[in-house]
Formats: sequence, C-alpha cells, structure tokens
Amino acid sequence: MRYMGLLEAYAAYLPVNERTPKLTLHEGNTPLIEAKKLSEQLELHIYLKYEGLNPTGSFKDRGMVMAVAKAVEEGSNTIMCASTGNTSAAAAAYAARANLNCIVLIPNNNIALGKLAQAVIYGAKVIAIEGNFDRALEIVRDITTKHPITLVNSVNPYRIEGQKTAAFEVCDQLGKAPDYLAIPVGNAGNITAYWKGFKEYHEAGRSSSLPKMIGFEAEGAMAIVKGEPIREPETIATAIRIGNPASWDGAVRAAEESGGSIDYVTDNEILAAYKLLASEEGVFAEPASAASLAGVIKRKQHGYFKNGETVVCVLTGNGLKDPNVALNSVQVEPIFVPDTEEDVMKAIQLLDSN
Amino acid sequence: MRYMGLLEAYAAYLPVNERTPKLTLHEGNTPLIEAKKLSEQLELHIYLKYEGLNPTGSFKDRGMVMAVAKAVEEGSNTIMCASTGNTSAAAAAYAARANLNCIVLIPNNNIALGKLAQAVIYGAKVIAIEGNFDRALEIVRDITTKHPITLVNSVNPYRIEGQKTAAFEVCDQLGKAPDYLAIPVGNAGNITAYWKGFKEYHEAGRSSSLPKMIGFEAEGAMAIVKGEPIREPETIATAIRIGNPASWDGAVRAAEESGGSIDYVTDNEILAAYKLLASEEGVFAEPASAASLAGVIKRKQHGYFKNGETVVCVLTGNGLKDPNVALNSVQVEPIFVPDTEEDVMKAIQLLDSN
Repeated sequence: MRYMGLLEAYAAYLPVNERTPKLTLHEGNTPLIEAKKLSEQLELHIYLKYEGLNPTGSFKDRGMVMAVAKAVEEGSNTIMCASTGNTSAAAAAYAARANLNCIVLIPNNNIALGKLAQAVIYGAKVIAIEGNFDRALEIVRDITTKHPITLVNSVNPYRIEGQKTAAFEVCDQLGKAPDYLAIPVGNAGNITAYWKGFKEYHEAGRSSSLPKMIGFEAEGAMAIVKGEPIREPETIATAIRIGNPASWDGAVRAAEESGGSIDYVTDNEILAAYKLLASEEGVFAEPASAASLAGVIKRKQHGYFKNGETVVCVLTGNGLKDPNVALNSVQVEPIFVPDTEEDVMKAIQLLDSN
Repeated sequence: MRYMGLLEAYAAYLPVNERTPKLTLHEGNTPLIEAKKLSEQLELHIYLKYEGLNPTGSFKDRGMVMAVAKAVEEGSNTIMCASTGNTSAAAAAYAARANLNCIVLIPNNNIALGKLAQAVIYGAKVIAIEGNFDRALEIVRDITTKHPITLVNSVNPYRIEGQKTAAFEVCDQLGKAPDYLAIPVGNAGNITAYWKGFKEYHEAGRSSSLPKMIGFEAEGAMAIVKGEPIREPETIATAIRIGNPASWDGAVRAAEESGGSIDYVTDNEILAAYKLLASEEGVFAEPASAASLAGVIKRKQHGYFKNGETVVCVLTGNGLKDPNVALNSVQVEPIFVPDTEEDVMKAIQLLDSN
C-alpha cells in the first residue's frame, strides 16, 4: 500500500477530522535500523530510529505537519515561530506546502546563517531582534495571542500530537514496544510525545508492553538533571542546547511513570557516539542525536541493562544539518601523493597499517 | 509489513542469491510527492521522486547497496572509488555497514572538503592525487584490476542493477508507469537504470505501459546534446558536471527506445526550478536535481506535453548536501528590528506588502 504521510496513516490517533487538510510531505515512515555491530559490542539489541530521513531532515516534521494542518483548518494564513534551527526548517517547509506565510523570529546574537538556509529557501521571512532567544519567543507569544497568526513553537499542543506517531512506528516496526527507549532531551517535547504515543498504543491494544524511557541531556544544558534552569547552556549538540525545557514536567513524568530516568552525557561522550554511529553502522546523524547512544553506552558501563534487552535509540536529525562538526571531529586532511598507481598503492598500504 | 531495504524488497529482480548478504541501511522506499501547485501551474500531473531521503542523501545508495553486497559475497575486504561527492558518501556508508575498508581517490585540484565530510565521518580513507578526476578514475581502474580491491565507480555493473529499483517504486507508488519520466543527466547511469527498470517491470507484467524518458543535461556540460565530450564542463549543478558520461550510450538508447529525448537546461533555469521546488512544494533538493523540473518547464513552454499528462520528476539528492547554493540564491539578510512587539509587527506588515 502506498504511504501517504502521518495524518493519513495514524488518523485514528490524531486530532484529524473531515475539515483537516490532507497535508503531507510524506513525513514519518522513517527507518528503524538494526545496529548490528553496536549490538554485539554492547551485548544488547540496539535499533536506531533514524529521524534524519524526514522531509526536512529532523523529527520536527511530525509535529509540524499536524500543527500546520490545524492552522489551515482554523483559517489561519500565517504561522510564526522563534527558532534558529530544525523548527524553522519544518515550519517553513509545511507553510510552503500549505500556502501559508511563515515568519521566523531569531535573536540577533550569534546567528549562523547556514542553520537558516532551509527556512530561507522554503520561503520563510526571517526577522532578527535585538534580544536573545527567550525574548524572541516572548514576542512570538504576544503577537500570536493578539493577531490572527498561529504560533508553531512547541507550546502549540498539536506538535506533541504529531510527534507521538514516532512511538507508534517503533512498535509497528519492531512488532512490540522495546525494553528501553533512549532519547536526547533538549526542550523535552520529544520524550513527552514518545511516552504519550507508547501509552496510547498500549491502551489501544496495539502493543503489549511499555518501554522504560531513558532521556539524556547534554552536560552543559542539564537543567532537569540539576533540577534548575541553566542560564547559559553550552554544548556542541546545538539542537539540545536548551537551559529551560518547555516540556520539563512531561519529561520527568515520562521517566517516572515508565521506570526510566533522565541522565546526562558529556560533549566528549556525544562526539564519540556520533563517530561510532557513522563509522560502525553507516548512519550519519546530528551531534544532538548521538546523545541517545552516548547515554546507552554510559549506562551499559554502569551495569544498567540486562544482556540481550532491546533498546531503541532515537536519532533526531540528519548529520547533513551540521557537517562542520563531522569535519572538525575527525582527521580530514587527505594524504597527497603523485598520480601513479605505485604511489597510490603505497598510500593504501600505509593507511592499512595504521 | 516492515520495509527492510532494496535487496529484500526487489530480490526477484536483482542479482541476489543465498550467499548475498542482506546488507541494508533501509535505502529506497523514497517518497513520490504530488506537486500540487506546480501541477496546477503547468496543467500537468507532476510528481516528485524525492531521492534525497535515501540514507546518505542521494540515489547513489540504491546502486551502492547492491555493489557492496556483491563485493562482500565475492570475498572482497576493500572497495575503492574516485569521487568527490555523492558516490564517495554512499560507498563509505555501505563499507562501514559491511565492515569493509573504503578508499576514496580525489583530484588535488579544487577540493571542497565539505563535500567529503560524509565519506570522512563514515570512515573512508581519502587519498588526493596530483592529477585531475579522469586520472584518478584511471588509477582506480588500474589498481582494482590488479589487486583484490573492488571498484565501485559507475563502471561496476551492479550499480545500475540497484538503481533500476527506483523505476519499480515509481510504478508501485503511482499504480502505473507515468507518461513521462524527467531526469537529470550527468554520468547518465541513472537514466539508463530507470529505463532498464521500467522495461523489466513491464515485461514482468507489473506495469502496463512504458514512460517516455526525458533527460536533461546542464548547458555547460551537455556532451550528449552536443554529440561530443566537453573538456571543461561547468555548471552550478555540480552533481551533473560531467563532460564525458560513462553511460552515454545507455542514455541515448533510453531516449530513442522510449520516444523521449535528451535536452539541456541553463544554470538559470536550474536555479529557478530549485527555488520553485522549495518555495512552492516544500521540497529541498540538490541543484542538480532541479534539472528535471527545469526541463519540464522548458518543454511545457515549447508545447511538448498534452494537458493532464503524468510526469514524474526525479530529484536525485538532498538540498542539505549543498546549502550554500540556497544561501547564495535567495536574499538571506534578515531584517533587524528592536525587540518590541510593535517593531516586529511593523516588519511583518512591511514584508507582507513586498
């Protein structure tokens, strides 16, 4: 059967009615890839939920298709968000598809235009303000309260509805819920959404068990682990560099209700896992994505799992979003040799012996 | 049913036997997205085969999974290619997955390391030679003839076998073959593979008709259109910047046998189509990918199609592979305003009126 996107595939579990447009870029339906070498090394059954193969390259598409479809249904002609990364890309793409205007508000400090390339090419209008990110979000909230413009930041409740479909897919692809769901935690909307999804699928009789939810913040942004907001969060994993998670309570609840936990990983652990994913399994994910595998490796070293348990690691975004981290994290200078067969063979043998 | 990659999904049509490893990164199964606005504007039924959602971001994964699986089957422990782009990324990823070494030979002139970020992070060993690309390919051919190293450039016949599966998917997703298959032409392996796939599916009774194959070279690299190799090919569409296509004959045969043609598009036409794909349909593809849509727009202006005919445009790679083209092709400087609601609203109204 032809796959036609999340709103059709999981209509029964979503706030979809006959007035909701059948909006889709064929988001979802992402691979659950068996990590054979990592499984052997860690004596677990590890699977990678590779969300980087969503249409704009991150899991944000799942929530955005739902949020934008509802915006259209409710008669909106403009959506708005504060974001410098994956959210703005997803918002801009679905706005283009649905023929809405998209306004992206960004803080003036520290703008990496490369991160905005997607939003811009999809046709979003970008406005930079003098304040920081929190101030940008505040203005977005004020404006969307007073004007007929739809807020699509994570405060929009439809985002989590769309995002929970990833849990459905994991169950469908695995034939059951995994023993553990390992996931990066930044704004904490995704762990909240997965847990909601697992519970709903379980209640509907579509899976017979529930996973333990194990979320991992980056050390420099571990607000939940510390129990207090971080004023100046810092980590190489920019997609989870968040000091005051919007879905803080949801993350804590997911961990507690499922018998899991929220833990942290260091930037070095993240980078090591990031390289392992690519070099051992052939999967190139965003640095932030690797927090899930980094956390599993850390926990394994502390004797957390039983051998042979099933762990799904959520990889939230595509490595192509941030190729500079790849270039900076490995030795990239190629060997230079003259253009003869002999010289090239010598170089190959030299590389082999290293 | 769970999708487990091309070698399983299309085993009956591929050189797969009981000794062939079940290698997969869940390549293939890419979306066929209806281009609703472009269809209306062009009075056609246009669909986009979005190959950028393959695991390494391009259609090359289809051929590479087949080539690497056969390399493993034949006892090879090292693969090698000359490439500075999508081929090296795909080769490196499947080599990592299959536990093979991967050697990438690149010309020393004009190396964009960013293009090699993927190959490097997947663990390929990169060697730069003093000569140009043709010389690099020559050395790869010489070495792989004499040593137990498998060549995975497009000369490897398994590449086209794997790539032809995209035609099967188009038929399965559309429920029939389209009237036209529009496709970028660089090295010409892909148009050759699609045509082989359409014919095989037709012979097997899986589709009742055959499409007309319309291929589009970039003006600065239009060897087939001109009928002679281009010594110094130049185009913004780097993935099809090829002056002497390896599958030249295959492309000509596909066009002739199907009643289609090989035509060219200018860089401006490519850029315009590239922007339209993103801003009208929410699909971000590599510049080279847009040659297919650019060609359809050009042909439509010349009265080539009948209204309502079905055209599938192949989008060969993900726009994230080359985000600088996006940044350079649109106005990216954001508007700067003070951080008040009023100033932001003024900016929104200003943008609206533009």
